[in-house]
Amino acid sequence: MHPQVYSLTLAGTGNRRLQAASPMNFPARHLTLPELGIRFRATRAASIAVAAGLDAEDCALQSMPDASPVKWHLAHTTWFFETMVLERFARSHSPLRAEFREFYNSYYNVVGEQFPRAQRGLISRPGLEEVLAYRRHVDAAMDSLLSEPSLDYEALKLIELGLNHEQQHQELMVTDLKHLLSLNPFSPAYRQAKKELPAKAPALTWKAFDCALVEIGHSGIGFSFDNELPRHRQFLEPFELASRPATAGEYLAFVQDGGYARPELWLSEGWQTVQAQKWASPLYWRRIDGQWQEFTLHGLRPLDPARPVVHLSHYEADAYARWADARLPTEFEWERAAADEPVTGNFAEAGMLHPTPSPDGPMSALFGDVWEWTSSSYAAYPGFKTATGAVGEYNGKFMANQYVLRGGSCLTPQAHIRATYRNFFPSSARWQFSGLRLARDAL
Amino acid sequence: MHPQVYSLTLAGTGNRRLQAASPMNFPARHLTLPELGIRFRATRAASIAVAAGLDAEDCALQSMPDASPVKWHLAHTTWFFETMVLERFARSHSPLRAEFREFYNSYYNVVGEQFPRAQRGLISRPGLEEVLAYRRHVDAAMDSLLSEPSLDYEALKLIELGLNHEQQHQELMVTDLKHLLSLNPFSPAYRQAKKELPAKAPALTWKAFDCALVEIGHSGIGFSFDNELPRHRQFLEPFELASRPATAGEYLAFVQDGGYARPELWLSEGWQTVQAQKWASPLYWRRIDGQWQEFTLHGLRPLDPARPVVHLSHYEADAYARWADARLPTEFEWERAAADEPVTGNFAEAGMLHPTPSPDGPMSALFGDVWEWTSSSYAAYPGFKTATGAVGEYNGKFMANQYVLRGGSCLTPQAHIRATYRNFFPSSARWQFSGLRLARDAL
Amino acid sequence: MHPQVYSLTLAGTGNRRLQAASPMNFPARHLTLPELGIRFRATRAASIAVAAGLDAEDCALQSMPDASPVKWHLAHTTWFFETMVLERFARSHSPLRAEFREFYNSYYNVVGEQFPRAQRGLISRPGLEEVLAYRRHVDAAMDSLLSEPSLDYEALKLIELGLNHEQQHQELMVTDLKHLLSLNPFSPAYRQAKKELPAKAPALTWKAFDCALVEIGHSGIGFSFDNELPRHRQFLEPFELASRPATAGEYLAFVQDGGYARPELWLSEGWQTVQAQKWASPLYWRRIDGQWQEFTLHGLRPLDPARPVVHLSHYEADAYARWADARLPTEFEWERAAADEPVTGNFAEAGMLHPTPSPDGPMSALFGDVWEWTSSSYAAYPGFKTATGAVGEYNGKFMANQYVLRGGSCLTPQAHIRATYRNFFPSSARWQFSGLRLARDAL
Amino acid sequence: MHPQVYSLTLAGTGNRRLQAASPMNFPARHLTLPELGIRFRATRAASIAVAAGLDAEDCALQSMPDASPVKWHLAHTTWFFETMVLERFARSHSPLRAEFREFYNSYYNVVGEQFPRAQRGLISRPGLEEVLAYRRHVDAAMDSLLSEPSLDYEALKLIELGLNHEQQHQELMVTDLKHLLSLNPFSPAYRQAKKELPAKAPALTWKAFDCALVEIGHSGIGFSFDNELPRHRQFLEPFELASRPATAGEYLAFVQDGGYARPELWLSEGWQTVQAQKWASPLYWRRIDGQWQEFTLHGLRPLDPARPVVHLSHYEADAYARWADARLPTEFEWERAAADEPVTGNFAEAGMLHPTPSPDGPMSALFGDVWEWTSSSYAAYPGFKTATGAVGEYNGKFMANQYVLRGGSCLTPQAHIRATYRNFFPSSARWQFSGLRLARDAL
Repeated sequence: MHPQVYSLTLAGTGNRRLQAASPMNFPARHLTLPELGIRFRATRAASIAVAAGLDAEDCALQSMPDASPVKWHLAHTTWFFETMVLERFARSHSPLRAEFREFYNSYYNVVGEQFPRAQRGLISRPGLEEVLAYRRHVDAAMDSLLSEPSLDYEALKLIELGLNHEQQHQELMVTDLKHLLSLNPFSPAYRQAKKELPAKAPALTWKAFDCALVEIGHSGIGFSFDNELPRHRQFLEPFELASRPATAGEYLAFVQDGGYARPELWLSEGWQTVQAQKWASPLYWRRIDGQWQEFTLHGLRPLDPARPVVHLSHYEADAYARWADARLPTEFEWERAAADEPVTGNFAEAGMLHPTPSPDGPMSALFGDVWEWTSSSYAAYPGFKTATGAVGEYNGKFMANQYVLRGGSCLTPQAHIRATYRNFFPSSARWQFSGLRLARDAL
Repeated sequence: MHPQVYSLTLAGTGNRRLQAASPMNFPARHLTLPELGIRFRATRAASIAVAAGLDAEDCALQSMPDASPVKWHLAHTTWFFETMVLERFARSHSPLRAEFREFYNSYYNVVGEQFPRAQRGLISRPGLEEVLAYRRHVDAAMDSLLSEPSLDYEALKLIELGLNHEQQHQELMVTDLKHLLSLNPFSPAYRQAKKELPAKAPALTWKAFDCALVEIGHSGIGFSFDNELPRHRQFLEPFELASRPATAGEYLAFVQDGGYARPELWLSEGWQTVQAQKWASPLYWRRIDGQWQEFTLHGLRPLDPARPVVHLSHYEADAYARWADARLPTEFEWERAAADEPVTGNFAEAGMLHPTPSPDGPMSALFGDVWEWTSSSYAAYPGFKTATGAVGEYNGKFMANQYVLRGGSCLTPQAHIRATYRNFFPSSARWQFSGLRLARDAL
Repeated sequence: MHPQVYSLTLAGTGNRRLQAASPMNFPARHLTLPELGIRFRATRAASIAVAAGLDAEDCALQSMPDASPVKWHLAHTTWFFETMVLERFARSHSPLRAEFREFYNSYYNVVGEQFPRAQRGLISRPGLEEVLAYRRHVDAAMDSLLSEPSLDYEALKLIELGLNHEQQHQELMVTDLKHLLSLNPFSPAYRQAKKELPAKAPALTWKAFDCALVEIGHSGIGFSFDNELPRHRQFLEPFELASRPATAGEYLAFVQDGGYARPELWLSEGWQTVQAQKWASPLYWRRIDGQWQEFTLHGLRPLDPARPVVHLSHYEADAYARWADARLPTEFEWERAAADEPVTGNFAEAGMLHPTPSPDGPMSALFGDVWEWTSSSYAAYPGFKTATGAVGEYNGKFMANQYVLRGGSCLTPQAHIRATYRNFFPSSARWQFSGLRLARDAL
Repeated sequence: MHPQVYSLTLAGTGNRRLQAASPMNFPARHLTLPELGIRFRATRAASIAVAAGLDAEDCALQSMPDASPVKWHLAHTTWFFETMVLERFARSHSPLRAEFREFYNSYYNVVGEQFPRAQRGLISRPGLEEVLAYRRHVDAAMDSLLSEPSLDYEALKLIELGLNHEQQHQELMVTDLKHLLSLNPFSPAYRQAKKELPAKAPALTWKAFDCALVEIGHSGIGFSFDNELPRHRQFLEPFELASRPATAGEYLAFVQDGGYARPELWLSEGWQTVQAQKWASPLYWRRIDGQWQEFTLHGLRPLDPARPVVHLSHYEADAYARWADARLPTEFEWERAAADEPVTGNFAEAGMLHPTPSPDGPMSALFGDVWEWTSSSYAAYPGFKTATGAVGEYNGKFMANQYVLRGGSCLTPQAHIRATYRNFFPSSARWQFSGLRLARDAL
């Protein structure tokens, strides 16, 4: 017995790859320098806006090794431009403090030693004011650089990478802060909630997809991270995808059906985690005087069953799907469905700071609201090559024992996301805005 | 931009799956009861042969939570037949000791509570003699059952599953024992080595495979585990596969090139593990007075560079491949290459107890010698369904944060392995007979 | 054989105890209310002075579970007055925030639940400003109370206890802050150093004490903690005590003699700790470019061999003494020697923030500079009784596996210390200003 | 104020110590060689008797790092004679296996490296048979040595020390085995119980002791360990001591009164341990179907309220005493009371293997039945000196964070115990036969 090899006619490609791997496949070259300057200033300002209204103490603390203080994020994103761009491309650059080169390095071994991640919250000085001065110092140098008549293509690419990097940290700043505030017995709010009309979740329907050979990965137009490359082909057996993310109300039914006490619903590792961590609900749910409350960025609020469930680990998403007689989609199934959808939804710009009820329709809220866990382990695409130098450490070295999430969340800047975007976290991570959308096999 | 969906003509299937999932897809029905009886006795005897010559103390100890005492393996495989077969299908069955039902359950939540795995080595009684008596008691009852004129199809399937389960534990008994003996400062041997002629490893060559849509998974003839099902299709981009496993000599070059001290060669998690565990070579290599020695089942011996390297974690296999400017194959690539190869090689029956130098040829030693790590995370095939009842816990619940190994080892019974067979372990596991075969992308 | 019981004539006591235990043996009754008010305001102001010049981030962070944030100390000492005094004795008291009752409880089980100690540094709000407001709120209420024409004796005693409690926390604030700043790669200073003339340590001489039956413990005049009571008798065999604390220079000789690499010098537990923690010098010593530096509250400075060695664990003090062919004194030997000495020395009021070279003389620097480890396990004196209520948890429940230190340090307020004062920490604690004075047996 | 120094007339000693420290203060010199030979053979045979009836697996396993396998005890006590005596004093000695020198070293740094204690249960070979051969090999060499016409005094002393060392391990073998068997879900018995008549515990009465200056420590006649030296003086305030150990029935009342749920009864460290370890009763008590059972060396039996409570940690003994409005005695108080009592009681020779109800009388069962926790931290006596060489590591280096137990247990050989004997364990240890006797202050 052996696998049958099908006879295929693949128009246009013959037996060749679609695309050579190119870890720097983004087109800063086509941006004019003035345009890049405008984006630089806007992105940097958006980070400051995230921290607006927080006091120095909110910005200094670290609630767990996976999280970082807000002021660390503000400094590290600045470090990226200083170390990756100014050191190499500025005519002359005098650092504000030379020690920051090591201190604000996150994980780039090529750049040198790193300050231990778990101790970022043990550093009171530099304080927030000095970090903001550091930002201004680097921003001024970058302004000069961006005012040059022309720039090396490599520099342009690194600046664009730096802006996308900063957008990632804008989301992390808020997820990390939420975790910190959640440990505070006084349940403080990050921001006041906007007025919202009460809404109901639309009924869940299924959209069917035939079996097909599809192209997966970024096509080469516009920015992408290296892990979205190269574009290649995947064969998908027939499947169906839910019209919207699972809601808090649906997940509550799972909880109330004993979901956290039934080992047969869980992966073995998930069940061990449930017992060791004493999980009994999503991360920020609290049962208070018989009522379910949820800690949000607006403080503690009654659980709203109409909104997408959020702050699930991969284990919980998987167990819920099994309970619902379904499964998580693969990242390829998700990408196939998303390829035809507009990139609209509840993003950071809306300032909602929490998932909102999904619109009605055959396929809604793929983008925004909650990152959707997939069943796909985070792995290299066929033909993937890491870049040389520090940026080669951006994504590839994390391709082990993590799972892919797709679609962005209510904290993701809209311009940051796309159908091919791959986020990834370990199975046990819950502090990101992570939810799920069900899939199931079709005949 | 969106993924292009190719127009395909898939002869014979249309848009349907190849095969519905069937977690019990094996043909015990076609074995005659006398044939099954012969296989039962032979397989049970093979387990006893593994323990021959060991004393009670060798069989009682547990060297780490991942391993189990030999006598536990002997009892647990017996428990499987008692609990899964005799309890349900024997006309009457009086257990030797009723308490064994809980005590020798490994991880089946449906069956009931389990004795904690990490404490299996803390139990002196029942001793080896009583365990052997337990085996004889159950064997006698099984003999009666197998002498019936006919048996329920479900019983036949569970017996065949039990025999395959027992073969798995035959390998584990020896890998677990090797780990135990390796901690003994006197480096004792399990068995005396057979005479072998010195040999050299053949030159490594590459076999090219065009891009193709291939069928993956078990076809439904003969026994398979549920995780090999259902047979389905995968599209593979063009790749090349090494003609033989990597050798100890090749791996030594990696070690001597500073492989364990260069973070750029490692996955981030792998690098953390190297540093935390102070890894500097494969598990059983020892540097003694300037010479590399290897602890084997024959005791400590000079490292033989011609043999396949063995006892690597997934992290090490991955780092070595990166150093060699190659990568690990996916399990689908591996299966595609193996589908045309005969299932021959250095298996348990040869009694070598260690990998032997690979034969020359375009594709050798895919089977036997060492389990070959793939880059594939252990996951369900499209359409996978777990069985109901206890056997549904056999494989599916472990599909998280483990990686697939293929091909069997020098400790695997030959009749146990096949091209579609999927073994799986966590990235950090090193005590199995795990090695690797290189792959690389083709254009 | 049996212990010979000596025939004694104990003038005045017969066969009775010297003193009944009285855990509240302090004389607030003899202070006038105005006097107590003056002391209250002075002590509270001294705490604020400690934090002067620190920014909110310095005050918010927690460097390890044993330490607390500065702002926590500021709030907890306030909580003491609110919970122990105002709740019970104020005519009416409206708390600033009722939740503080639980939040700022350190370890009083009788008062109720406590916020987990190790998480005190995960709380950004209330911030420093709100904590200062809390202090002002309680101070105002205390001012009212202290303006009453008379107060219950129990209230007076609790206020005096609260002031002594606050003085303890004044020292802890600085030791905890020092530990935090020491982890900062930029080695920041808490305060600028005062001008000091260079000085040498005087030669070490020995003072001999004959065997004697002596009285130990507080005599009942003036404030003491309950653990200094009751006054009782101890028989001391003849001994000699060093004239001054061991110096950094002497300790450096121990380091250079391989002190941290010779197991025969260490208690078994100490040796395990040295190896597990990789200790090779006192906590804040650093070997930089071949020179010994010491992190101090003035930042990093060259190690000064003339000053008392400081920041030793009990294990290190014990090993050093063994190396020096001596031993640590018992707390009774120490108290016997100290009973005749004036309570003068380098205290917090001097603002030196570091030990200074000892004066010459037969017995110098018993008080101030460094806490001196004794060989005495922290235990109850014969006849000790804990108080009822919350203050009963002040000292007694810590009488296990800790060792006694005597004499106060350069961070201790002078009015806080006396010859009978017993401080205590676990054997491995190093972040306090702990040093040692040698003793040896005499014939 | 200062401690008053009493004017004393200490007949005969003036201001001198009673005794210089002499860590080898035992009189093997006065034993004839034939007598020592008889004792050697009897003691060695007693160890073999302990293991009689156990199978190889019982002797091979290690249940926790604090415990050791029976066969390790059998080998280590043999190693002591080989390394301490034969290597130095035998005319010629060829070791059975030279590797045993390191392998069976427990903790003597001077002798060389030690095999890690926690891994003693991971060694299947040498098996029990080889260990017994090792014993015979060393015994034969010792027989030759003991047949010499005369022996060096140092050799005599080391042989006597070795015999006392072996007696200690005879007790440990059984306590360690009991712990191992206790983890076995089948609750196996080590030995069958002897017939006993039912008995009641006598009423608890108090014996009063006046304040006194007493001599403590071994007087120099007969064998003692170095930690019992030098004999010196302690002043004791008046106290009372209970007539017998606390019983299981009395302790049960503490349990039923919520003893394990009331923090005010516990030392802070003890309370943390209770919560972390989820202690709710003594180590081997089990609540089964509403009845209290106790795991004993005869298997599981109904709890007998008349027998002394056993297998308490120091924390539990201390909490029970506080609940009973009493306290633990100091080791000096205990020794004062014991000095006049005969060394009789329920010892190993009786073969009871469990405490028996105490006889009636004003002071009973001080010796045998259960080791009695004292409130004294294990510390050096004034003037204590460690011996040079390996035997100097016997006791002194453990004088930190352990508490003293007195009197021996039902597993202690009678000839091994005396009024000055000091046993010591950490506060949390429970697997020894440890109980308590109450004390209280008198006026």
